[in-house]
Amino acid sequence: MPRLKLTLAYEGTRYAGWQIQAAAFPTVQGVLEEAVARIAGCRVPVHAAGRTDAGVHAEAQACHLDPPENRIDLDWRQALNAALPPDIRILAADPVSPSFHAQRDARGKVYAYSLWLGRQGPLPRIRAFVWHTAELDLPRLDEASRLLEGRRDFASFRNARAARGPTLRTLQAIRREPGRLGPLLCPTDWPVMTFFFEADGFLKQMVRNLMGFLVFVGRGKLPPSSAADILAAGDRRALPSPTAPAQGLTLMRVLYDPGPKESA
Amino acid sequence: MPRLKLTLAYEGTRYAGWQIQAAAFPTVQGVLEEAVARIAGCRVPVHAAGRTDAGVHAEAQACHLDPPENRIDLDWRQALNAALPPDIRILAADPVSPSFHAQRDARGKVYAYSLWLGRQGPLPRIRAFVWHTAELDLPRLDEASRLLEGRRDFASFRNARAARGPTLRTLQAIRREPGRLGPLLCPTDWPVMTFFFEADGFLKQMVRNLMGFLVFVGRGKLPPSSAADILAAGDRRALPSPTAPAQGLTLMRVLYDPGPKESA
Repeated sequence: MPRLKLTLAYEGTRYAGWQIQAAAFPTVQGVLEEAVARIAGCRVPVHAAGRTDAGVHAEAQACHLDPPENRIDLDWRQALNAALPPDIRILAADPVSPSFHAQRDARGKVYAYSLWLGRQGPLPRIRAFVWHTAELDLPRLDEASRLLEGRRDFASFRNARAARGPTLRTLQAIRREPGRLGPLLCPTDWPVMTFFFEADGFLKQMVRNLMGFLVFVGRGKLPPSSAADILAAGDRRALPSPTAPAQGLTLMRVLYDPGPKESA
Repeated sequence: MPRLKLTLAYEGTRYAGWQIQAAAFPTVQGVLEEAVARIAGCRVPVHAAGRTDAGVHAEAQACHLDPPENRIDLDWRQALNAALPPDIRILAADPVSPSFHAQRDARGKVYAYSLWLGRQGPLPRIRAFVWHTAELDLPRLDEASRLLEGRRDFASFRNARAARGPTLRTLQAIRREPGRLGPLLCPTDWPVMTFFFEADGFLKQMVRNLMGFLVFVGRGKLPPSSAADILAAGDRRALPSPTAPAQGLTLMRVLYDPGPKESA
């Protein structure tokens, strides 16, 4: 059975997240599987590297699917882009080894979270991609970031209703870049800041809970040192800050080892 | 009577243009005057530097209004932003001389028009701000741009249904910048190009007709030298290219002379 790896970008604004659900639509997976079915002539499930929440964007989500043998030679990128709405775009469709698995083979992900630090609301052009927090004490926030980096148990930063499972993750770094909006650079006088989170894996709502905590610290509502206590508690109820809204979050990249699996 | 100058940004996607119309809504002017009325306690007309078409965006449109005496000391920027939808933002509200006039005193404008030159459609994040043209012969297009610059009669590039009136304008320059999207910088591998048009004034749909012509030339459908013949004809019917779509266009700046009028 041939296997395809898709790399795709989407604006999450109008979607109830990646995953098909009984009670909410449209979903990115649902719309994508519909387009795939139209091209394949039969239903073909797609498996993503990870599920993005409702309203979360992606610059390069990854997924895999097994198209029917007689459709493997199609230009899948072009065919899917013709069938998909303009808020979902296929960036690449590459044949991979049948053993490639978008989720299991991912060795990490990079997320971006963008803030609008102005007193007045964000500029119209970028409003769907930022959280309006107004001014923050950034050195204070950086101090807390440093305490969160490394190999740690992030149970306290996981959505309370998430499935059980291991909660140890390596958060390589929290980097922040002024004037950046996900992949875009803004004029220097725009009060925009993007935080990049790279880890070997993320728990459900982990980036949004980390960002919510960091903004709480930046507002002076918690000391930076509270990061250690919250991590140690291992329980979402130990985290007093709210989850940051979905719209500021973008899945920037899924990291795979280069290797034989990447080509069929 | 005190006078205020507003500088505002908007995403034009859902608006039927700047100007209030009997047959189409919402308009930017309509929504803005509604917000002003709520704050002023009475109807106050706003006068823009120029009317943007349906779907056209602005990074810094300018307009003036005369608020009631007893409301002049308000923080108009903040009050209006609280009353306006998020796709319109007031960037500045400055008291000016009662003789200041947003349209008559404008000594020029800068428009940006953005193209997506990729074969596949534009990335979701920026799709509302580009025209998808695919690849173009840019040196050819540049040759035509050079023939359009200068003090010329632009009657052929004016909307055919526009009011009569003088059609002589000075187009200072058509500059293009790869990787730029209006005010934003994109990653270097994005096939984005923004054209900046600066002139002492623009006729109705002039930028969109110029851009439509340049793209026609860039596709090899017209020789660059046809610019001279089309200008000489002085008639929209001499222009064989279609008007470029509104969504790629942004009013970047309205130029005023610094002077006593700028402060009350």
